[in-house]
Amino acid sequence: MKIAVNKPVMSEQLQQAQSLRELWKQQGTLVVHLVSSPGAGKTSLLEATARHWKNRNSMAVLVGDIATERDAERLSPLAPTQQLTTGGACHLEISLVRQGWEKLPARHYDFLFIENVGNLVCPASFDLGEHLRVVLLSTTEGDDKPAKYPKMFLTSQAMIINKCDLLPHVPFSVEAATRDARLIQPELAVFPLSAWRNECIETWCQYLVSQRQQLLDPDHD
Amino acid sequence: MKIAVNKPVMSEQLQQAQSLRELWKQQGTLVVHLVSSPGAGKTSLLEATARHWKNRNSMAVLVGDIATERDAERLSPLAPTQQLTTGGACHLEISLVRQGWEKLPARHYDFLFIENVGNLVCPASFDLGEHLRVVLLSTTEGDDKPAKYPKMFLTSQAMIINKCDLLPHVPFSVEAATRDARLIQPELAVFPLSAWRNECIETWCQYLVSQRQQLLDPDHD
Repeated sequence: MKIAVNKPVMSEQLQQAQSLRELWKQQGTLVVHLVSSPGAGKTSLLEATARHWKNRNSMAVLVGDIATERDAERLSPLAPTQQLTTGGACHLEISLVRQGWEKLPARHYDFLFIENVGNLVCPASFDLGEHLRVVLLSTTEGDDKPAKYPKMFLTSQAMIINKCDLLPHVPFSVEAATRDARLIQPELAVFPLSAWRNECIETWCQYLVSQRQQLLDPDHD
Repeated sequence: MKIAVNKPVMSEQLQQAQSLRELWKQQGTLVVHLVSSPGAGKTSLLEATARHWKNRNSMAVLVGDIATERDAERLSPLAPTQQLTTGGACHLEISLVRQGWEKLPARHYDFLFIENVGNLVCPASFDLGEHLRVVLLSTTEGDDKPAKYPKMFLTSQAMIINKCDLLPHVPFSVEAATRDARLIQPELAVFPLSAWRNECIETWCQYLVSQRQQLLDPDHD
């Protein structure tokens, strides 16, 4: 009997995440996993994104929270939304994501957003089957957060710098935050914007469209 | 042989926390555990507190972070400070707190502040031997946070509403946040202030002094 010791044993969770990632790609859906501190503006970003697209791109949302359905109440008028309530846990896991996705009214969307529990630490360690992980940092949190919470920035492909409308009132340098984040993750795409004031949402939306195009047709220039 | 089944078996961590809490009380030290989301202003609050007291009350700080010593660098000019670096963990534990405390230059302070890692979820479950747990909520995070992260508010004795200087620029109701937090924890003392702008720091400092007095002399009116 031969045992292939070089092949890493994948956990069941990781296998589930990889299967879903492949299935979602086959269905033409780009899955975007949003992570941040509590109150950085994940739900506001999704509201602004849905309003920007209206019906030009179809999107659905799975929104995670420890308690309450407040985020789902905000998003439901704009896009099909399922609330995932963890009941105490500090992060989402793939099994809950799958359950929520199965309850959505349709199987095919251009974009599926997974909004994690507000937590800049623990969700970094969990693969939810996403194609793109996006970390939100708000200007009111301070520009030292990438250096202080490195794993979340290391495992993300894009960083939103949200609440840029408050820059005149807070001690925050977009340049310092970007520099520190790119020391950790050199490939990070960076989008300064204000979700609440609807500023610079178009650039972010164009990025998502191009990422979806690249996922579905990697040879397309 | 008789076994007292009604007596709960205390974990080693909880026993350590209770021993330290008693020791600190005997030494005349009120120990304050600060918890919040990343960037809510724990370090700024400690800076403002130390500046307010100057040498009228002695204080020391143990400051937790996943990475970097940036907070200790900010606080060291103002008070004896030890950085506790968790190296990835999302919260402080009592063993690390004890190690940091043993490295402080003296054993006796009027106040010892323990600043946890920025995380509104996980630190709620860990007793660090404190006499007082204080949760900071900043106005930029949104007034829905007590309802969405209930355990942190349930296990705290006081809530700071920080960044009140930004109230004209953000959608936040001090009344709604206070009401929701007191639905969870009716006894919660609430302090709206701005640590960065040094607004309403005196009320908070008076509260700490009275809490210490009560700890050391519960019969004193």
